[in-house]
Amino acid sequence: MQVIVLAAGKSSRLAPLADKNLLEFSGKALIEHQIAALKRVKLRDIVVVASKNNLEQMERLLQSYKNVAVVEQKDLDEGMKGGVMAASKLVKHPNIMVLNGNDVFEDELFEKVIKASKEKGVHGVIAGKKMMDYFPGGYLKFTKSGAITDIIEKPGVGKEPSKLVNLVCHVYNDFPTFLKYLKNVKSKRDDKYEVAIDNYIKKGGAKIMAQKYTGTWSTLKYPWHVLQMMNHFLEGQETKISRQADIAKSAIIEGNVFIEKNVRVLPNAVIKGPAYIGEGSIIANNALVRDSMIGRNCVVGYSTEVARSYLNHDVWMHSNYIGDSVIDSNVSFGAGTVLGNLRFDEASIMMKIKKDKVDTDMNKLGAIIGSGSRFGINSSTNPGVRIGRNCFIGGNVLIEKDVEDDKMVLLDQKLKVIKNTQSISIENRNEMKGKVK
Amino acid sequence: MQVIVLAAGKSSRLAPLADKNLLEFSGKALIEHQIAALKRVKLRDIVVVASKNNLEQMERLLQSYKNVAVVEQKDLDEGMKGGVMAASKLVKHPNIMVLNGNDVFEDELFEKVIKASKEKGVHGVIAGKKMMDYFPGGYLKFTKSGAITDIIEKPGVGKEPSKLVNLVCHVYNDFPTFLKYLKNVKSKRDDKYEVAIDNYIKKGGAKIMAQKYTGTWSTLKYPWHVLQMMNHFLEGQETKISRQADIAKSAIIEGNVFIEKNVRVLPNAVIKGPAYIGEGSIIANNALVRDSMIGRNCVVGYSTEVARSYLNHDVWMHSNYIGDSVIDSNVSFGAGTVLGNLRFDEASIMMKIKKDKVDTDMNKLGAIIGSGSRFGINSSTNPGVRIGRNCFIGGNVLIEKDVEDDKMVLLDQKLKVIKNTQSISIENRNEMKGKVK
Amino acid sequence: MQVIVLAAGKSSRLAPLADKNLLEFSGKALIEHQIAALKRVKLRDIVVVASKNNLEQMERLLQSYKNVAVVEQKDLDEGMKGGVMAASKLVKHPNIMVLNGNDVFEDELFEKVIKASKEKGVHGVIAGKKMMDYFPGGYLKFTKSGAITDIIEKPGVGKEPSKLVNLVCHVYNDFPTFLKYLKNVKSKRDDKYEVAIDNYIKKGGAKIMAQKYTGTWSTLKYPWHVLQMMNHFLEGQETKISRQADIAKSAIIEGNVFIEKNVRVLPNAVIKGPAYIGEGSIIANNALVRDSMIGRNCVVGYSTEVARSYLNHDVWMHSNYIGDSVIDSNVSFGAGTVLGNLRFDEASIMMKIKKDKVDTDMNKLGAIIGSGSRFGINSSTNPGVRIGRNCFIGGNVLIEKDVEDDKMVLLDQKLKVIKNTQSISIENRNEMKGKVK
Repeated sequence: MQVIVLAAGKSSRLAPLADKNLLEFSGKALIEHQIAALKRVKLRDIVVVASKNNLEQMERLLQSYKNVAVVEQKDLDEGMKGGVMAASKLVKHPNIMVLNGNDVFEDELFEKVIKASKEKGVHGVIAGKKMMDYFPGGYLKFTKSGAITDIIEKPGVGKEPSKLVNLVCHVYNDFPTFLKYLKNVKSKRDDKYEVAIDNYIKKGGAKIMAQKYTGTWSTLKYPWHVLQMMNHFLEGQETKISRQADIAKSAIIEGNVFIEKNVRVLPNAVIKGPAYIGEGSIIANNALVRDSMIGRNCVVGYSTEVARSYLNHDVWMHSNYIGDSVIDSNVSFGAGTVLGNLRFDEASIMMKIKKDKVDTDMNKLGAIIGSGSRFGINSSTNPGVRIGRNCFIGGNVLIEKDVEDDKMVLLDQKLKVIKNTQSISIENRNEMKGKVK
Repeated sequence: MQVIVLAAGKSSRLAPLADKNLLEFSGKALIEHQIAALKRVKLRDIVVVASKNNLEQMERLLQSYKNVAVVEQKDLDEGMKGGVMAASKLVKHPNIMVLNGNDVFEDELFEKVIKASKEKGVHGVIAGKKMMDYFPGGYLKFTKSGAITDIIEKPGVGKEPSKLVNLVCHVYNDFPTFLKYLKNVKSKRDDKYEVAIDNYIKKGGAKIMAQKYTGTWSTLKYPWHVLQMMNHFLEGQETKISRQADIAKSAIIEGNVFIEKNVRVLPNAVIKGPAYIGEGSIIANNALVRDSMIGRNCVVGYSTEVARSYLNHDVWMHSNYIGDSVIDSNVSFGAGTVLGNLRFDEASIMMKIKKDKVDTDMNKLGAIIGSGSRFGINSSTNPGVRIGRNCFIGGNVLIEKDVEDDKMVLLDQKLKVIKNTQSISIENRNEMKGKVK
Repeated sequence: MQVIVLAAGKSSRLAPLADKNLLEFSGKALIEHQIAALKRVKLRDIVVVASKNNLEQMERLLQSYKNVAVVEQKDLDEGMKGGVMAASKLVKHPNIMVLNGNDVFEDELFEKVIKASKEKGVHGVIAGKKMMDYFPGGYLKFTKSGAITDIIEKPGVGKEPSKLVNLVCHVYNDFPTFLKYLKNVKSKRDDKYEVAIDNYIKKGGAKIMAQKYTGTWSTLKYPWHVLQMMNHFLEGQETKISRQADIAKSAIIEGNVFIEKNVRVLPNAVIKGPAYIGEGSIIANNALVRDSMIGRNCVVGYSTEVARSYLNHDVWMHSNYIGDSVIDSNVSFGAGTVLGNLRFDEASIMMKIKKDKVDTDMNKLGAIIGSGSRFGINSSTNPGVRIGRNCFIGGNVLIEKDVEDDKMVLLDQKLKVIKNTQSISIENRNEMKGKVK
């Protein structure tokens, strides 16, 4: 079986973060985690569909992978149809799995789907995630034997035909036939792929089975989902400290912590698992890292707390508080800078996504920060703000709303400068010093 | 002997702090400390006089105490007279002690006063605190044998009739007779109780003895007196760590420290006595607590110093400096927030009390903070400011003067937002990282 | 041989720092280090030339030194000529060394110069520092045998007559003759001393030898040179902890660290060498000092990092970040105050020196702070700013440009104060507390 991994798209709802497939978790890009998962279940022949914005990086990243090809999807408006069509040129088998690049599942799902696809008379399988609460996705309608009769998009609460929601982990045993249906779809909406499945079932009489899945499912739609994805990888990691890491005697490492090689943990630093520390990073004196992922070549400097946060590679900080935040690569923070993560009223935090305000359903959320940005000293950000790429945020600035890419934000400060006629002798101060204990 | 404890009043000079009798020290409300002290000297029959503002809480707090009754004083304008009259309905003995609820003495005072009241021919005793410097109170004038002939209010420096100042710890051996004098006082001023004593001595020929007292006396008139009261209780406490407290191996606990049950002291935290840590509180990694009282269910978070400060229950902080401050219950601080406690000129700090500026006679004093308030990140307060109850102080705000109850104070910040055309490569930064040691 | 040490001048380019000769390094004023170096090479008869601004302090400082005289140079416009003339009254030998007070060399230089001056037929010696890159100084032109024929001021790149630049470590074997040339110089420029040497060679036929020097040379022209001078003394120091210092068991001291008596290093403090801690100073809990010199009677308070910085005596700080900065005596910092030390673009930092912008050629440089200044809480300074003497910098202020002596700089802050109608129950917060680990 060959796998088509759909990794094209603009990741625009994830702005200002990098392409979602290339975000690194536990030292590997998300797409690499997908490939690794597929290889664990013996799916070794893979076509990754990229797009203009991530093609070059994807090719560079995957060039050393055997049996992994990268193709470009040119017309992104064609959605999944365009992705599958782009990959079809490299398809060599009739058995094909179509997988969404940033949907992360447990291996069990692949095993079940593959097994189900081998049943006699079956033309394909669609994975269905069992949902306890209503989810705005495509619900599977199927017969008693499990054969899908319809996929109903966003049916509304109480109108769900089943508890199973369509996950883009689809198997086709006769891909060339499905491809014909796909080519022939005429629709002006972005659901051409789904219409093709519908036609394949209803007109083509294909027997597509629903495969129930009750395991975890992580995906990256909104920026804060990076924190949930991070937790997924943290939970699954083994506890390990590389022998090539340099851990100070007085450092404290507790719980499920993975430390890569060439990491240095300096005296009195504390790492509380689950946590991941990437290759070459420094956790400096008195720093506290907990429930977080620190990418490679980061510096968590002196007296800095990083709590429940994701740092991509090359992020530098010292004397900061970083809570519940997502920080892309090559970002640094001046001393005293704090990312606020809790509203005064402790209510759920909203984020602007394109033109909408979206409820994150989290009452603790810090900032989302794009690659290449710099923060001055003693600056602050309100909960849930987004700082674009290559932004410079001046000292003492309070960021109260989103900052676009490539902005410099400086304080336009009004000062009173007056003559000072007072001076304080050293003697007075020595008296006070006597009280320092 | 029965004791009337006067605990009515508005505590308005103590605003924004809670009722002074209910402020918790070492895990108990001040009124409970008074009751405990009285019980230690076998005074077990107690009438507490409350007022509208604290009646309900007082009743709830004291309902489980045996032989402790709570009555309400309705007309607060009647002052001490009103308090004693309100209590008189519950008086069952001729022997009565009248005690001010927030005057805290050593047990020795009660013992001496009781003993003196048992002398033959004596109708009552008034405790007199020996003052070395002038104090604006009522000075006792008495004969060689110690019988009081007059109480002179604020005589002025050099005009004191003795060194003894009237403390409200008064004993009457024939309370019904004193009560008649009290009922009959006609005065428009708030000194009716004192006039009744005067009449009782001069017209009634009562022999009221002055009882000299040289021990400690703590009271709560102004907000900063909470710090002195705290020190009183810290000095008197035993050194003890509850077996049900969880103390990290690397935490350092020095000096006279009392730690209640269910406290957690995390790695590398330091507690320097005298200090009290209330039930269920957390002293987090690298925190430093010294010369302070931390109420129950507080969180002194990562990298926070609390020095010479009083925290009532449920106060939360992280990455803060809190010095010489009084913080009521249910208050929290964003990271980076600092309470300033020293003027540039190191002079004595003034506080506004109602319409007056009062010299605190302290050159180190932080903030006085009311219950329910919240501080954003990187905010600051000038020395000696008062923040009311239920205030929200925004990020990066500098509080330069008192804030009334129920205010939200936000920065009206002017920013320059310009295009940023620069970006910094990871390579340049790696060069710098080589220098981190 | 007698030595004339030139220590007159206004140190105006070093403003707001104290007189450069009196700045303390490793517990001694710079002039004391010079005297000590001279004594090590048996040069024990010394005349120090001071000026109005440092005369009194110099006399007080050196009064207990044997064979060290202090004279005043009145006319500072006469430059080196004036200095040598002022000293000449106290000259008792024909053999004289003229040395610049703030040029610090290795002992080897003195030894070589003395030796060279003893060669037969030699009238004097001028030390020449071998420069690999062009330096805007006076280049020595000399014959094959080493006899100087000319000193060419700032010849321009590629036009250097040799690689040796004139260092003010000059020996005269026949000082009275040189003095005659010096007295007779008529020049309106400030190069009278150099002209005298020129005349002495060309008209007087004096044989002045160039003595090559390849060792280290530290001097104090600009404020940031204090950091280089500090490094010079740190590199040369021995590793030693005074027995009269009090070092907490959990403190960590690494590398080349010199700790004077009566120093207290509190629990969990870290000192990373090279570092010097002056007498009576306190390095408090969790503080981190690295690559720095802390003068006497300083307090590096709780949770403070001092990196690559120079502190003169009586500097106080707590919860600060101090990087790459020069701080004169009697200065203090409120909690949360940060000295920024890196531009957003990581470019070399410029400083204003009198009316010019001078490139410091450092991409990390904090602030230069004059004696007697005070910083409020959560204030910040941009890289490379200069704060004058006796300045008060208010809380939350961002210093973006130089501040003159005797200024008070306060925030003229605009706030929005509105009614707050929200309050947060303790119950909601307890839920959150459950997650603190």
